[in-house]
Amino acid sequence: MSSQQVDNTYERFLDHVKQYHYLSGASMMLGWDQRVTMPEGGTPARAKQASALSAVQHDMLTDDDLAAMLDDLEGAVEGERAAIVRETRRSHERAARVPDDLVERLTEASANAHPVWKQAKADADFGQFEETLREIVDLRREYAEAIDPDRDPYAVLVEEYEPYIPLSDIEATLERLREELPPLIDDIGDSDVELANPLAGTYDQDDQESLVREALDTLGYDWDRGRLDTAAHPFSVGTQFDARVTTRFSPDDPLDALGSTIHEFGHASYTLGLPDSEYGTPLGSDRDMTIHESQSRLWENHVGRSLPFWRLFTPVVEDHLGVETEPRALYEAANRVYDDNLIRVEADELTYHLHIVLRWEIERDLIRGDLAVSEVPAVWNDRMEEYLGVRPENDAEGCLQDTHWAGASFGYFPTYSLGSMLAAQLFAAAERDLGPLDDDIENGAFDPLSEWLTENVHQHGCRYTTPELVESATGERLTADYFLDYAREKYGQLYDLEN
Amino acid sequence: MSSQQVDNTYERFLDHVKQYHYLSGASMMLGWDQRVTMPEGGTPARAKQASALSAVQHDMLTDDDLAAMLDDLEGAVEGERAAIVRETRRSHERAARVPDDLVERLTEASANAHPVWKQAKADADFGQFEETLREIVDLRREYAEAIDPDRDPYAVLVEEYEPYIPLSDIEATLERLREELPPLIDDIGDSDVELANPLAGTYDQDDQESLVREALDTLGYDWDRGRLDTAAHPFSVGTQFDARVTTRFSPDDPLDALGSTIHEFGHASYTLGLPDSEYGTPLGSDRDMTIHESQSRLWENHVGRSLPFWRLFTPVVEDHLGVETEPRALYEAANRVYDDNLIRVEADELTYHLHIVLRWEIERDLIRGDLAVSEVPAVWNDRMEEYLGVRPENDAEGCLQDTHWAGASFGYFPTYSLGSMLAAQLFAAAERDLGPLDDDIENGAFDPLSEWLTENVHQHGCRYTTPELVESATGERLTADYFLDYAREKYGQLYDLEN
Repeated sequence: MSSQQVDNTYERFLDHVKQYHYLSGASMMLGWDQRVTMPEGGTPARAKQASALSAVQHDMLTDDDLAAMLDDLEGAVEGERAAIVRETRRSHERAARVPDDLVERLTEASANAHPVWKQAKADADFGQFEETLREIVDLRREYAEAIDPDRDPYAVLVEEYEPYIPLSDIEATLERLREELPPLIDDIGDSDVELANPLAGTYDQDDQESLVREALDTLGYDWDRGRLDTAAHPFSVGTQFDARVTTRFSPDDPLDALGSTIHEFGHASYTLGLPDSEYGTPLGSDRDMTIHESQSRLWENHVGRSLPFWRLFTPVVEDHLGVETEPRALYEAANRVYDDNLIRVEADELTYHLHIVLRWEIERDLIRGDLAVSEVPAVWNDRMEEYLGVRPENDAEGCLQDTHWAGASFGYFPTYSLGSMLAAQLFAAAERDLGPLDDDIENGAFDPLSEWLTENVHQHGCRYTTPELVESATGERLTADYFLDYAREKYGQLYDLEN
Repeated sequence: MSSQQVDNTYERFLDHVKQYHYLSGASMMLGWDQRVTMPEGGTPARAKQASALSAVQHDMLTDDDLAAMLDDLEGAVEGERAAIVRETRRSHERAARVPDDLVERLTEASANAHPVWKQAKADADFGQFEETLREIVDLRREYAEAIDPDRDPYAVLVEEYEPYIPLSDIEATLERLREELPPLIDDIGDSDVELANPLAGTYDQDDQESLVREALDTLGYDWDRGRLDTAAHPFSVGTQFDARVTTRFSPDDPLDALGSTIHEFGHASYTLGLPDSEYGTPLGSDRDMTIHESQSRLWENHVGRSLPFWRLFTPVVEDHLGVETEPRALYEAANRVYDDNLIRVEADELTYHLHIVLRWEIERDLIRGDLAVSEVPAVWNDRMEEYLGVRPENDAEGCLQDTHWAGASFGYFPTYSLGSMLAAQLFAAAERDLGPLDDDIENGAFDPLSEWLTENVHQHGCRYTTPELVESATGERLTADYFLDYAREKYGQLYDLEN
């Protein structure tokens, strides 16, 4: 093709890509509404609307004309254009390889699985869910095989969420956590230190809400491009023009709402940092779940669980909740390690990753056909005992606690741990560039960190692959080194451990 | 075609129709979010999402395959199937006849017009808006000509909102209101009666909100399929599974919020009365703006402005607003006629229709080319003086007050008056079937009326044309008789007029 022909094809291609992304944005908003504002009776109509929209998106992504344009453009464009072609081709191929009827069966199976899982969890009875889970595992294996029959199906599924970091690297990271965290957690368990808990009691939802709103103000959330609502399972969705945060309140744990709000702020700040001018292309879209989770964890843990943050924020907490305490006490309360906790979403920064390791091992073996669905509860309970020294008394606090598998998500869990590793690595890189951030945090000066993250991570969208982005932002490959150093230093100090 | 071929074609056709309607439902929800929950910064992304979705819907509606199926099915199916074919053909033809670039120019022009109109209104200066309005009038004339070059362009535009009642009938109705209302309004102006106003003062928004929520409870709003929010210009949208109401609060006029909420309840109750099983087809869709407005006006005026309603609801008002009054006083307050009011949305039940007559005359003449855009302010002011005896002091309280023309809506206004006429006619028909409803209303027993409306109006969706539906529900054609009788009796009594 002449360069004029390439330009013309590219324009047509870009228009197609943008229309597709705009429709994805519409879908996301319908999802937000369903989880936040929709009355429950609206479900049947919303299911039809979402599925019609998803069918249109699927058609646009698997379109023959798009395939032809991708063939024409590959190798003919470079730089940002090549990145857009690369990302679109990846999405196109994954979508095109999966037969329509399999997509429909998967969507239907996971929609039907949700109430079955919910009831099984309520009854703490895995037996009710077993057949449903078997069906979903089989469909997901079929799905992975449709995408690539020659590769490890679990690797194929992980790429839904983390497309570019090789599974061998991911697994090496998880194995290292499995290796190195238990001794630290054991030392903490053996420590005589009792961390403070100055917020025993119950707190009004209104007070908690005004507190988390002030946290969002303090961190620099742009209310003109966002809003805060409540949701049963907090999440954040949106675009660079409108990235919304949700949270939840429990009467006796205001730190839960605060931590969860700061976590979702991290997700939203990533989305809001994507370039406005690239809205509708992969350059204006978030990279993947690893990067997303690195942003939420960085703000939740490296900022929100730091001593300087509590020096800044303790008076705010005192003011909204009507308590009298001190920064060190709240810092301790936000960093208690619970070595007898069975529930992932209630876990601390350390034991959290052993919850993930357990799920990774089980889902990997299920997808590879190395573990029967019927064996899940026993394996779960045994591994909990092995890694964390506690054993669930029933399936509700064991293998039924998470919704991911009922939702047909296999390969998602590892990105939670990868995100934490990357959060520590990015925070260290930011401090190398900007100097120690303690004073900034204590003074409520979050702009330097925010701007560093936008410049080094957010603004690139999907311009780079994940490993390229990690290397360009931190100067090295993704590593657990920074997280483990951070963990040993912070918790060694908190629990008065010998180093 | 064999009957088997017809059945197959019909199934394929119906699937296409449903997908189209589901996407319309998705569009509506994006619109709700934009007006109710979206942060302002989200506008650029939402505009792209809405326009991408609307382009998909336009393609589906103008699709050649759909055209071929319509040709095959017309005359080959009957009953409900024929109604679905009739309604789909009508939408298809209107969409197919308008060139894509004209649709885009119209969308763009009205999007651009909104801020120009808003500023012109803020500055009370029609001159700033004149050129923009001229452009929109020209585009709408071009649009009407594209649909049918051989017919009165205004008639073609009215059919966007009221497709089946002949314009000659509509105009005869409006002419009759222009004839018969002024003498009644004059008599009221001459009356010595001063109606009560027991709610002078200001009221907390929270108290007003709990009041209107109780009103929705009382009328039987299904909260499992709806919700209440605030919006600058109250509206209702949704489906039979999820029909939402919005309202607004002004500190010194709690009756405004209440009336507006009951009005939107009427719209929502229509939507909720559409059959669940037909969601996604014209049989599960609202008929048109005339029918919609008849439902909102029936509840707002014939229920919410009736003496029995105030017998029921006065204790509730007293309770929420902390006042002490009596039913007759609130009844009078809700029915004051303001013969010096310049603003349509603040008008009473009687003068309201002269505001509509004025707009109908002006927009009809603009579209027919009988009136220059530059003459609009002068004609507006002269007619206000002629019909209502008051003259706007500036364009903000004159021809700039409504957003419709800036939004390229010409032909919409008449449906407001038609809806009121039909509301009176339906209420009379319901009382013929059920007996006088005063006692039911006073006792808060709204089910008989609701069920009558669902059975006679809502459940039919678009099965019938509007005249057929009116005749099947009331036994006669749409007429202003019932409204005028109702108005003369009610206001004759309120203002102590000689009959």
